[in-house]
Amino acid sequence: MNKISVTALLLMVTTLSTPLCVQSQEHPNLIMTKSGVEKIRKHLGQVPLFDATLKSVKEEVDVEIAFGIDTPIPKDFSGGYTHFRHKQNFKFAQKAGALYQILQDDKYAVYVRDMLFQYEAMYKNLPAHPQKRSYARGKLFWQCLNDSNWLVYMSQAYDTIYNFLSAAERSTLENNLFRPFADYISLENPKFYNRVHNHSTWGNAAVGMIGLVMDDEELIQRALYGITDDGLPVGGRDNDGGIIKVVGQKKGFLANLDEPFSPDGYYTEGPYYQRYAMYPFLIFALAMHNERPELKVLQHKENVLLKGVNALLNLSDADGEFFPLNDGQKGMSYYTASLVSTVNIAYHYGTKNPQLLSIAEKQNQVLLDVSGLDVAIGIRDGKAQPFTKKSINLSDGIKGKQGGVSVLRYGNEELSLVFKYAAQGLSHGHYDKLSYSLHEKGDEVIQDYGLARFVNIGQKGGGNYLKENKTWAKTTIAHNTLSQNTEMHFDGEYATASTKHSDLYLYDDTKPNIQVVSATEVNAYPGTEMHRTMAMMKLKNFDKAFVLDIMKVTSTSKNQYDFPFYFIGQVIKMNFSYDSPSSLSALGSANGYQHLYLEGKGKPSSDTTQFSWLGNGKFYTLTTATNPSDELLLTRIGANDPNFNLRRDAALMIRRKESGNTIFASVIEPHGSYSPVSESSVNSNSNIAELEIVHDDESYTAVAIKDLSGTVSVFILANLNASASQKHQLKIAGKLYRWTGAYHFTDK
Amino acid sequence: MNKISVTALLLMVTTLSTPLCVQSQEHPNLIMTKSGVEKIRKHLGQVPLFDATLKSVKEEVDVEIAFGIDTPIPKDFSGGYTHFRHKQNFKFAQKAGALYQILQDDKYAVYVRDMLFQYEAMYKNLPAHPQKRSYARGKLFWQCLNDSNWLVYMSQAYDTIYNFLSAAERSTLENNLFRPFADYISLENPKFYNRVHNHSTWGNAAVGMIGLVMDDEELIQRALYGITDDGLPVGGRDNDGGIIKVVGQKKGFLANLDEPFSPDGYYTEGPYYQRYAMYPFLIFALAMHNERPELKVLQHKENVLLKGVNALLNLSDADGEFFPLNDGQKGMSYYTASLVSTVNIAYHYGTKNPQLLSIAEKQNQVLLDVSGLDVAIGIRDGKAQPFTKKSINLSDGIKGKQGGVSVLRYGNEELSLVFKYAAQGLSHGHYDKLSYSLHEKGDEVIQDYGLARFVNIGQKGGGNYLKENKTWAKTTIAHNTLSQNTEMHFDGEYATASTKHSDLYLYDDTKPNIQVVSATEVNAYPGTEMHRTMAMMKLKNFDKAFVLDIMKVTSTSKNQYDFPFYFIGQVIKMNFSYDSPSSLSALGSANGYQHLYLEGKGKPSSDTTQFSWLGNGKFYTLTTATNPSDELLLTRIGANDPNFNLRRDAALMIRRKESGNTIFASVIEPHGSYSPVSESSVNSNSNIAELEIVHDDESYTAVAIKDLSGTVSVFILANLNASASQKHQLKIAGKLYRWTGAYHFTDK
Repeated sequence: MNKISVTALLLMVTTLSTPLCVQSQEHPNLIMTKSGVEKIRKHLGQVPLFDATLKSVKEEVDVEIAFGIDTPIPKDFSGGYTHFRHKQNFKFAQKAGALYQILQDDKYAVYVRDMLFQYEAMYKNLPAHPQKRSYARGKLFWQCLNDSNWLVYMSQAYDTIYNFLSAAERSTLENNLFRPFADYISLENPKFYNRVHNHSTWGNAAVGMIGLVMDDEELIQRALYGITDDGLPVGGRDNDGGIIKVVGQKKGFLANLDEPFSPDGYYTEGPYYQRYAMYPFLIFALAMHNERPELKVLQHKENVLLKGVNALLNLSDADGEFFPLNDGQKGMSYYTASLVSTVNIAYHYGTKNPQLLSIAEKQNQVLLDVSGLDVAIGIRDGKAQPFTKKSINLSDGIKGKQGGVSVLRYGNEELSLVFKYAAQGLSHGHYDKLSYSLHEKGDEVIQDYGLARFVNIGQKGGGNYLKENKTWAKTTIAHNTLSQNTEMHFDGEYATASTKHSDLYLYDDTKPNIQVVSATEVNAYPGTEMHRTMAMMKLKNFDKAFVLDIMKVTSTSKNQYDFPFYFIGQVIKMNFSYDSPSSLSALGSANGYQHLYLEGKGKPSSDTTQFSWLGNGKFYTLTTATNPSDELLLTRIGANDPNFNLRRDAALMIRRKESGNTIFASVIEPHGSYSPVSESSVNSNSNIAELEIVHDDESYTAVAIKDLSGTVSVFILANLNASASQKHQLKIAGKLYRWTGAYHFTDK
Repeated sequence: MNKISVTALLLMVTTLSTPLCVQSQEHPNLIMTKSGVEKIRKHLGQVPLFDATLKSVKEEVDVEIAFGIDTPIPKDFSGGYTHFRHKQNFKFAQKAGALYQILQDDKYAVYVRDMLFQYEAMYKNLPAHPQKRSYARGKLFWQCLNDSNWLVYMSQAYDTIYNFLSAAERSTLENNLFRPFADYISLENPKFYNRVHNHSTWGNAAVGMIGLVMDDEELIQRALYGITDDGLPVGGRDNDGGIIKVVGQKKGFLANLDEPFSPDGYYTEGPYYQRYAMYPFLIFALAMHNERPELKVLQHKENVLLKGVNALLNLSDADGEFFPLNDGQKGMSYYTASLVSTVNIAYHYGTKNPQLLSIAEKQNQVLLDVSGLDVAIGIRDGKAQPFTKKSINLSDGIKGKQGGVSVLRYGNEELSLVFKYAAQGLSHGHYDKLSYSLHEKGDEVIQDYGLARFVNIGQKGGGNYLKENKTWAKTTIAHNTLSQNTEMHFDGEYATASTKHSDLYLYDDTKPNIQVVSATEVNAYPGTEMHRTMAMMKLKNFDKAFVLDIMKVTSTSKNQYDFPFYFIGQVIKMNFSYDSPSSLSALGSANGYQHLYLEGKGKPSSDTTQFSWLGNGKFYTLTTATNPSDELLLTRIGANDPNFNLRRDAALMIRRKESGNTIFASVIEPHGSYSPVSESSVNSNSNIAELEIVHDDESYTAVAIKDLSGTVSVFILANLNASASQKHQLKIAGKLYRWTGAYHFTDK
């Protein structure tokens, strides 16, 4: 009731004051622009996807307006009502602002204005959020991060109705809401604001965007370059264990743009966080492009933002789901809203890559700005081309010198191998040097666990990271790589891990039937060197491509090595016997082992151990060279997980004790299919008869794969020289091999 | 090489002899007919779905013809090559025969003829199949069942090329192959042939179909009425434990049509086996319709076959997958080939129900006969209407007096409850009286386990039933019903179970916001009576419909009751605490309990126990009235399963000890949703505050559901009189309720 009369009053004031207001800047000019709006209005009714998006946005905003504005006193974690409501508010305010510009219907401006004044009334006296878990509490939300989200969106909403408001109204909002809000997330929370981290990116963008709307140069500078003297001590940790202040590190938006992106556009935290960060990166860069084009923020670091879009899209499976490198929630895909902006902006401000249009087509919605209009016009005009993902090697590190991530692909994503030899990935990194995951189309074959978190599901630890993220998901044994003496890489110490990275040895995706990536890691276990080589092959006697995996270990000490394969599916067959315990106990007590049940323990019955499973209607076989003294462990996640925070997924693990130098050589072979509808089982057996390490010394490693017809294919790697022009020769079992380049391969 | 010259020779003989041959019958006239073929040829090129099917069948048959004919010496179980090959052969022969008729290209007739003569050459001296597991070994396959499949298809193939062959060729095939084949699966295997069982249906149809083609009245009579004097002793068991000979039971095709189908068309073994049996039922009935229309086999038992099609289609979820009642493999759906014939034949020979066309449209293929043409024309002419599945109650038993199965549905299959109060279901039945499963659209909410078998996957027990089918899948504790003293219903004895059935108490699907099914079981545990009532409700304070479940138990003794809920998904929250064992052990040693791990054990902390999970992106909460002395067990399947034959699925189980009469009252409430793409969690909490049994005596049971707003809805069931006209009154907590009919419901 009170609200209505205030609204009515404000409406009068607005009507009176607008004509008197002197415009120092044009509005909108942040994301929407005056000329952009004119162009959009001119095309209304002529561009199907744009019109459809406009209609659906209008429908949802109209429902919200009818529902009424609610700005509850903050109380809940993510997953709770107040969190949800404030998040809805900023999203709908931004949309309503766009509708106001496009449809020129005042009801949308009134909705935004009224909402902003409700916030203004509340914010003045608002204390920090009552939930105290965050290292940097917000006011509307439990962490400054979400408050920053709010400001990034609300800045856009404010810009769109700027001219609708009176100078007095603007002054009230700016003095009581926007400036204090910007100061709170920056000056009052430098530990949140002044880092190189996706959190800070959001903070920087938020401050910068409202600065641009208010034409406040100080805020813009603070956004671009951070807070000069933040008074923070060196060190300090956030909730994820990430270090807050690093000596000599730059800060602000440009630093955040410089550091986490490699020159190839790979974002060091991985695609899940890149997806999240792309929005503030692009939206503020675009705002700068519109308001301060001379600073060329959008083109910063040789167009790294646009390269980042390409890298991100390439880090997805055939269904568009991002590979869950580091902390990543499975199922997140390029269908998410922030990727709509990402794809639209990259198309419009980039090279108008027609392949992006096919993704926009799948997304089936566009931004309500000129970039969205442009995309929708391109689709209307039949310009879309399929987004073809090929093999790609992406460097990590500010200068591209800190390892990287490779994706080897065969065919039309029939098989995709994601091989990680990157840096730690900031606080969201996992201790998984030289790990990989394998995918057939959109299905996981050998999985990366991802994160242990139910994002925004309040009942599960407030929707935040669960403790099992640290005790399981980040651990080394949770990944498809080598664990030594049941320890984690770098002993699980972030301070060490964050200064190290693996190194690329070889990447070659130029040949049609074999692609190779190879990398080394010498820091994860001091005294032990790992050299892993993964080759994706399509041999003529095989129906499908497969992966050869060679992990060569050199160590100054005797160790126990664990080497797991987190297969997805149901066990079909193996060529070894094992004992099944009558009750299940944890495999260890720390470093992730406490979460693994041991379901079976066996010994190889042959030098070639085979293990088959059926997953998502397809058969797979692991064929691996084993020693008679190896242990073969069948494990399942779930021990010491009283709250059922982990999935009950299985693995086969090779355990090799008392070994110094050793080598693991395996093939993961997809074959055949099964349909419960036709009930026909096709090619359900492996085509491999034998896998043998036929040579292994400091200089060369050779593996022979014999298929069921007796045909033998030999892969030889030169371990010490990856030069493409180096000549090699090696005699194996009386036969002389000569070749040029880092590897030799015979597919007979 | 030899083959080619024989072929050439035969070709000459054919050419010479055909004009001399006297036709006693017209051919084809089994499934394809002369007039049908003429009609098809007249429409070629004018009916898109028929033309597309023809094109694709032609393509696959051409590939097979190019590949060459292989009729290997039988060796393998299902899942192995020889099994697969012979199965492919009969399927392709039948298709090639149809192509020959439609396209009139001799190469298809030659292919069928040559294949038949290869079989003729082999069959003469063929011993029984070398795999000895079956109670009735075939010759080409490990069981007579598959040999019968062969003959059902090959009869059609033979019929289509009958006139292409010379009399001498026909005589050779009939004397050396078809008649001995028919005799082998019938006279020599009466234990297979002379039962009421889907096996026998295939056998009967096979003998009858070849009899019709050969115009052999003796075989036709044997098909319709079985073997008069089979010399079998009463009793005997097949591989699944089913009884072979029952005193006084009829035999032959008509008996198989009479007995397993109820007057409503429910097939007592359940939809998975009905789907399998529909093909021989319909195809032989259709052949009889074409050849012996006066016997009205297709219309037998008041059109029970066509009613069966309707029943079968209604026993599927929103994705068309059949509910896995009894032994049923999950994923089997109406997209399977036998359902194409089923739907096409039911449309053409039935009432031309336009809703069947929408299923044919989804199947995207039709039969290459007049029924398929008719369906394709209907689709082309825009006659298809959505197949709308509503609630349905299907009686079981030859006269519909042996219990049944109900499916309650809300909305457009938003919620489907499958409640089973049927007879045992022959040898494929499970010991699961008054059990149920719950489905939201195509996703399982509370699952029925289905079978323990990897059909046609040779590596898993030859693709046959695994021993865990008996030790787990058939047991009572594997189902969502009451287990008493850790025993199975009927002590797991088929001989007893097969003579008993549950009884319907009440079925009412006439009201928009509440539907009720209620049934009783008095034989499963002698001395204990179960009366289960399940109501599907949509209350106005709730977003979605939910299910109220009341299991009233009356017993003359004190017992331990176990009452499980096999939820599908990840645990989100509960309102009770529990201990988690540090190692997992089996919950019991027999009756299925040996396969359950105990993952947690707790006590109710309130009279209203709640437990929530997230499955397939949707939230669910079980709310159940508990006693302070109840135990709440968190179980997971997988103990004593060394070969990983079982899925690691979870359940919450209420254990109530030392109880005689008792009652379990629960609500299973779907609510909200979660998307990993938007990461938004909607309505993730239950809307129920309290569930209370407010009255329970011999005559009446009443349950009150209080929602979070405090609104209370009361459901009262009259336990002793289900008459719709009976007047009742009952005072509960001082309030008088008056109503007419078996139940009262207030949704305030």
